[in-house]
Formats: sequence, C-alpha cells, structure tokens
Amino acid sequence: MAKNPVAVTWMTEETFDVSIGSHHFMIDSPPQGRASRGPSPLSLALAGLAGCTAMDVISILQKQRQAVTGLVVRVDGDRAADHPRRYTRIEVTYELRGRNLSPQAVQRAVALSDEKYCSVTATFRQPTEVVNRIVLLDEAAEAEDAPPGAAPA
Amino acid sequence: MAKNPVAVTWMTEETFDVSIGSHHFMIDSPPQGRASRGPSPLSLALAGLAGCTAMDVISILQKQRQAVTGLVVRVDGDRAADHPRRYTRIEVTYELRGRNLSPQAVQRAVALSDEKYCSVTATFRQPTEVVNRIVLLDEAAEAEDAPPGAAPA
Repeated sequence: MAKNPVAVTWMTEETFDVSIGSHHFMIDSPPQGRASRGPSPLSLALAGLAGCTAMDVISILQKQRQAVTGLVVRVDGDRAADHPRRYTRIEVTYELRGRNLSPQAVQRAVALSDEKYCSVTATFRQPTEVVNRIVLLDEAAEAEDAPPGAAPA
Repeated sequence: MAKNPVAVTWMTEETFDVSIGSHHFMIDSPPQGRASRGPSPLSLALAGLAGCTAMDVISILQKQRQAVTGLVVRVDGDRAADHPRRYTRIEVTYELRGRNLSPQAVQRAVALSDEKYCSVTATFRQPTEVVNRIVLLDEAAEAEDAPPGAAPA
C-alpha cells in the first residue's frame, strides 16, 4: 500500500498537481480557449495501461534475446454515449521495431502480458470496487480552536 | 478518439516516455538499487481516477458556491495476491478544506462524481474489453526494401 502513494492536489482553476512518491506533474481539464497545462485524468488512466504492458513486453522479449530496437504502445478506446461515459472497449497497439524479430515470440510476449502479468489490464477487465471517504477541515473552526498566539495554518 | 492520443515509447532500460497530446513525462519500473525516473504505470492509473473525481468535486462545489479553499484526493488499493495482481478494491480519500463547508453538499458532490460523472471510476467499476493489435517493423527488411539512395529511417 505504501509503495505507490498517490495524491492529487487542487492548484488553481481546473489544474491539479499529481504527486506519486517524489514525482510531480500537472493534470488539467481546461475550458475551451485555454491551453492545457497537463494531460487529462482519463488519458492518464489509459497511459497507465499502455505503460504497464509496454514494460512487460520489453522485459519478456529481452529475456528471449529478441533484438528489439524500439517499441511504441498506443492506446485508445470507445466510450459509452451516456454519462459517466466510461470506456467500454480499449484498443492497445504495439508498434515493435527490431532485427529479425520472431512474430511468434512477439505474439507470445503480448499474450503473456495480457493474460498473466499486466496488473492494469487485469484491473480494467474485471469489476473493481471503489469506495470513498471524506475528511472535512473547516478553516473557521480550526481558527477558533487554535490556542492564543498559534500561527495560522 | 483523437482527443486523447496516448503513446508510450521505450527510451532506455525500464524507462518509457508517456506522450499525451503535447505533454510528456517519464514512467519507470527501476530494478532494486536504481532511483526511479518517474512514476509506475500502476500509480498512473490510480492518479487518473483520483484526478477525474477531484475535478468533478471542485467543479460541483464551486457551482454551489461552497467556499472550498483546498482539496487533496488520495487513492490507494488492495491487490490480488496472485499474478496479474489486479486491484480488487480502491479507496479514494477526499481531504477538503474550506470555510463553513456544508457536509451534505460535500457528500452530494462526491456521490455525484462517483455515480454520475467520473468516467474513470465507472471504467474501473465495470468490466472493460481490452484488445491488442501488433505492428512489426523489421529493420533488416526495411533496409532491403529501401530503393537505392533512399535516406535511412
């Protein structure tokens, strides 16, 4: 649980900071006319899937001494027409470059990631329970509770 | 489909570039002893969920003129013991700061995101089809096919 501490913090307007361990970047959902300051949360979830299987496939092919020189994994999907417009189908395209790559070895690497190793693919495929917890911090109440002379938060 | 073009490109070792529209960052899965150059794909998928609902909740509460001054959404989960170790349960914690926030308004905003608006939550909750496509680019074959005098790729 403590290995992937993920927090998303509101910065300004529709822009949020994503903090994952020591790494930070911005995500954004700009209104029309404003340039985006970062990717959207939806595309982030897709990138998680692409990244997970990309790492598997490179690792498996390297262990099999396939001469992979490049890999791009693209991911896109179909969404439901009605809110919340969930993804119903996600298509993952593996563009592999190499010298004399065995098509069978490549197909097997993709299948192993798909069926056995990729945690994100498996999470998308199966129903996952999502539960919410709310913590309210009232600034007025905090100020009242503060002892005399305490520094403001 | 073209709104969120997501591509993950192998850079070096276990490090990949994530490209989402004009935005780029690195993801990584370092072996023990090497510092990570970016977040893991799994944490990225969780950050997508946290970001999606965080944006909903801020937007809903601002429309209701609630004086929100801060929001941090943390997300973590339980994973299956066996490979592919998918998430079975994800817990989302909303830490809201504000002046005289209505607990009912906050609960309603979280429920609206959870049930009606957040595409990522809905994608995680329901089974999603994931399909794969492989494109092989053989460097040796390309070199043979190139017309005389053609520039190398």
